Amino acid sequence: MSKLPLRAKSYRILRPYMENQAGEWPSRLFDTCLIVLILANAIAMMLETVPDIAHRWGTALGIFDTLSVTIFTIEYITRVWCCVENPETKHAEKSLFKQRLHYMLSPMAIVDLIAILPFYLGMFINLDLRVLRILRLTRLIKLGRYSHSIQLLWQVLRNESRTLFAAMSVLVIIMTFAATGIYYLEREQQPEVFGSIPNAMWWALVTLTTLGYGDVIPVTPMGKVFSGLVTLLGVTLYALPAGILSSSFTAQLHIRRERFRALVNDAMADGYLTDNDYHHIEKIRELLYLDKEEAELIVQLLKHRQDGHSEPTDDDSLG
Amino acid sequence: MSKLPLRAKSYRILRPYMENQAGEWPSRLFDTCLIVLILANAIAMMLETVPDIAHRWGTALGIFDTLSVTIFTIEYITRVWCCVENPETKHAEKSLFKQRLHYMLSPMAIVDLIAILPFYLGMFINLDLRVLRILRLTRLIKLGRYSHSIQLLWQVLRNESRTLFAAMSVLVIIMTFAATGIYYLEREQQPEVFGSIPNAMWWALVTLTTLGYGDVIPVTPMGKVFSGLVTLLGVTLYALPAGILSSSFTAQLHIRRERFRALVNDAMADGYLTDNDYHHIEKIRELLYLDKEEAELIVQLLKHRQDGHSEPTDDDSLG
Amino acid sequence: MSKLPLRAKSYRILRPYMENQAGEWPSRLFDTCLIVLILANAIAMMLETVPDIAHRWGTALGIFDTLSVTIFTIEYITRVWCCVENPETKHAEKSLFKQRLHYMLSPMAIVDLIAILPFYLGMFINLDLRVLRILRLTRLIKLGRYSHSIQLLWQVLRNESRTLFAAMSVLVIIMTFAATGIYYLEREQQPEVFGSIPNAMWWALVTLTTLGYGDVIPVTPMGKVFSGLVTLLGVTLYALPAGILSSSFTAQLHIRRERFRALVNDAMADGYLTDNDYHHIEKIRELLYLDKEEAELIVQLLKHRQDGHSEPTDDDSLG
Amino acid sequence: MSKLPLRAKSYRILRPYMENQAGEWPSRLFDTCLIVLILANAIAMMLETVPDIAHRWGTALGIFDTLSVTIFTIEYITRVWCCVENPETKHAEKSLFKQRLHYMLSPMAIVDLIAILPFYLGMFINLDLRVLRILRLTRLIKLGRYSHSIQLLWQVLRNESRTLFAAMSVLVIIMTFAATGIYYLEREQQPEVFGSIPNAMWWALVTLTTLGYGDVIPVTPMGKVFSGLVTLLGVTLYALPAGILSSSFTAQLHIRRERFRALVNDAMADGYLTDNDYHHIEKIRELLYLDKEEAELIVQLLKHRQDGHSEPTDDDSLG
Repeated sequence: MSKLPLRAKSYRILRPYMENQAGEWPSRLFDTCLIVLILANAIAMMLETVPDIAHRWGTALGIFDTLSVTIFTIEYITRVWCCVENPETKHAEKSLFKQRLHYMLSPMAIVDLIAILPFYLGMFINLDLRVLRILRLTRLIKLGRYSHSIQLLWQVLRNESRTLFAAMSVLVIIMTFAATGIYYLEREQQPEVFGSIPNAMWWALVTLTTLGYGDVIPVTPMGKVFSGLVTLLGVTLYALPAGILSSSFTAQLHIRRERFRALVNDAMADGYLTDNDYHHIEKIRELLYLDKEEAELIVQLLKHRQDGHSEPTDDDSLG
Repeated sequence: MSKLPLRAKSYRILRPYMENQAGEWPSRLFDTCLIVLILANAIAMMLETVPDIAHRWGTALGIFDTLSVTIFTIEYITRVWCCVENPETKHAEKSLFKQRLHYMLSPMAIVDLIAILPFYLGMFINLDLRVLRILRLTRLIKLGRYSHSIQLLWQVLRNESRTLFAAMSVLVIIMTFAATGIYYLEREQQPEVFGSIPNAMWWALVTLTTLGYGDVIPVTPMGKVFSGLVTLLGVTLYALPAGILSSSFTAQLHIRRERFRALVNDAMADGYLTDNDYHHIEKIRELLYLDKEEAELIVQLLKHRQDGHSEPTDDDSLG
Repeated sequence: MSKLPLRAKSYRILRPYMENQAGEWPSRLFDTCLIVLILANAIAMMLETVPDIAHRWGTALGIFDTLSVTIFTIEYITRVWCCVENPETKHAEKSLFKQRLHYMLSPMAIVDLIAILPFYLGMFINLDLRVLRILRLTRLIKLGRYSHSIQLLWQVLRNESRTLFAAMSVLVIIMTFAATGIYYLEREQQPEVFGSIPNAMWWALVTLTTLGYGDVIPVTPMGKVFSGLVTLLGVTLYALPAGILSSSFTAQLHIRRERFRALVNDAMADGYLTDNDYHHIEKIRELLYLDKEEAELIVQLLKHRQDGHSEPTDDDSLG
Repeated sequence: MSKLPLRAKSYRILRPYMENQAGEWPSRLFDTCLIVLILANAIAMMLETVPDIAHRWGTALGIFDTLSVTIFTIEYITRVWCCVENPETKHAEKSLFKQRLHYMLSPMAIVDLIAILPFYLGMFINLDLRVLRILRLTRLIKLGRYSHSIQLLWQVLRNESRTLFAAMSVLVIIMTFAATGIYYLEREQQPEVFGSIPNAMWWALVTLTTLGYGDVIPVTPMGKVFSGLVTLLGVTLYALPAGILSSSFTAQLHIRRERFRALVNDAMADGYLTDNDYHHIEKIRELLYLDKEEAELIVQLLKHRQDGHSEPTDDDSLG
């Protein structure tokens, strides 16, 4: 099937588990190892900042970092090399180079690169080590490749990004009003914390997010009354992002359910479901992350209809 | 088309971007400049209250304020002047003066006026500067003109205002009960903070909103038990505004989806969708702030039906 | 229509505004006065506890209380007297006395009684004044009679009471586990606050409700890790009451929408909507607290169908 | 019907109330006694840790514990003995021993065992008493057997476990980023609390969960700005578990409603509802935890259709 069996084999191992439902063991093993390595890296990075541990195990942690970078580098190069085996883009008219360039510009490939680049930059150029260390955290994002749910969450966040951004803007505007109000009411009593609006912003943030550290508290009666009104308002507006995400989630599931229904309907166009159809439906259900119980119900209702129950009174719409 | 080309042109530039989907660049440029100016104003107003900055850059900030007010004044006058070009009200039987007066009484026009008025009032009358400065914040509200989402959020809040007000009233009533209870339980132990019900209200607010500053904490065992019961109850009632907004949001999206469906259905009355129809549908989709993916699904399902699949079993209701 | 015109007139004035959509002014005026009186009572009760105010205005507040009780007593007696005019129960086979007794046992009538009883009990028996004062707060509950939304909220809470109680039980169980865990981890370091499980419960409550007063904080590394796990879990379970109320609210609105649809459908059984029908529909809409926009959409869709568009493809289900 | 009437009788008494809708009083009484005993056990365990109470009532509490364990042991043995009477598994081809072993491996039976095992282990082996005491808390989980709602909550949590786990992972990843950022910004100012990333994690947890104890607060301007951004982001992501649980709850209710509809539809296949059908429907309604009002509406709509109103315009889909 492929001129380069090794490249094709590498691709099959490297592509994330969820795409190969057949569940070949080398691919599964590779995924598990990589997930463990990523988590170990994150823990190592944290422990490195504890003076005691850095003193004792510094060398070991350094070696582990070098080793990890080596593995991630090999992974990255292999991914770029065998990305041309991707069946979705394989038969495109593009040259191998263009396909690889296209892959290298995909978000996950960039994350892979950023996860290793600082190490090599640090070797050649004399950069601030701080920034390099923070960039090592991007290795954690590599985990996203292995979780259906994280990708679904990501999609919901991206879909609603504009609305969420607007909600955030509203929160920031309300925060500005709150800070301005409390500044005028409390600046004489507590000049050190409410001495300017930027200072009062800290109080507004801590209050509107219901954090309530307790380091900055209004003391004048008017300040307390104003603070109460602002908090009650804040509570309501706080609910907005939750409502937006919630309704987006429900809408997402709705769209998926509808798509599934349409597909099952098509599969039953010939009047019955073959074993092949069942296999196909199961696969689609997994791709759309649908609940098993729910999917079963949809199939049953559609089958019920097919079996001669097509009088108008029988439309068990799932909507 | 218009007797005064300049007035018509001004109107086209001034009207917010989202209304002119054609996206003429002068209008876009003007919008961007105004958004930047509004944000710069808000930042300037905040920085002015920092003593250090006020001392060093006071004059510059004063000049910037004067300049901003000048621009906002020109903007306001132009808006009033050319509002008669609004196609929705243009051919009404009203006189130009009445049309302008009507525009001047619209919420956004009043916001525009309040954003500049204090400056002029401060020049003639000897008002308290504090109030004037707070009113300058209304300039931030001018941003609402430029965001679809802020307007959608505003509409949801207005739709649910009565229910939210009722939820707030319930919260205030619960707060009163909580304050009365803790007053009787803690007043002897901590007379300085629980010495009267109005004082105890501060604790009730901080507790029921889960702020928890930590400045006022019950210390008696009975006070702690009462506080626990109140908090657990408060938590549940807290969820109410969230639920109300959430369900309103979902209902809003539902209404929009239904409207879109009805419109697409009408457009397909002749059996097929022309390019013009597609253009029209796209425009409606944007006006109803519908998701692109969702809109596509609706169109596909309705088309599917048209193509002869009109047997009763095929009603893919979107509900 | 009634043998006792005065009793009937009193009933018409006393029954809450929302039931008389015709909006007779004496009834409206009476409602407004009573709402103001109730709020003034609540404020007076709070101010009475401020030593300064109690000292200065004590006599005035006492007179106001006596006056209020007199008015509430007259209101209560009148309500009991004319409750037999209620058209829903009027033509029942019960005696006037039984009807009145039945009314007196309704929740709102009991609230009315509790709002005045302590005053009279305090005059005859030597009771603890504290309890009497708290009972005066029940006057606030009288407000419930005048708000559609508060009654809707009340209904949702009552409908979901069993589920919410279960959610609360789960929260209390989790709290017990959290308190037990932290007790074993922190009792040696901080015996004064984590010295026993009941003591540790206070920490668990403050933490799981995300209050975070900051008076009790784990200090040992293990305590902090355990606290982190408990908080993350608590956050998720916290979301449950919100979810329950939210979904109940949506279901409530759904049921109402369906009922409205069924009623409009019946009204159009003769093929068209008369002015009388419109008036009737509007009244039902208000009784079901439905959104005007939504109701209109339902009516339009049903009308659309009636106008000959009855082919199966046209079922714009609102579901 | 059964060879061992005593065993069958025991089974009928022991099986939880909700399964025997007939409501035989011995079963109800037994359930109530057991619930009271479990709650008394939990309270006794807590009070035992209060030094004062342990000193005074230690012996009494010890006797009560022994008594409870005895009762729970008898309960456990009886349950294992008579589990073979379960009608669902009774006529299976398994031997009595296999049936009992199968029951003993069910989650609730394991909970029952763990609730008593530590007591016996403590008598024979010299184990750490701490662990034993914590295991006594599992007795609380025995309550789950007696609440419909707790089981529904449990099912929702289990259904969404994967998504909730993913959401938790995202929260932990965000927490790691927040801790890393604040570590670099604050470590020089407050080395004792931000001295290493694991230390900074405590701040990140307390902040992102909006706990805000106030023991660790950023003080540098950059730290405050970063903290503000992190909090605003955290707020949005916090809403995710709520949204997931909420939408799962709604979906659960939806599936139940659909099932109920299908069942009622089948019951009415012969054209009318007999008294027996009504009884059957009521039973199903309770099994699916459906709202009474909602169930009634479904039945009415389906009946309406049957009564000759089968024209296409009349499909009052409930979706």
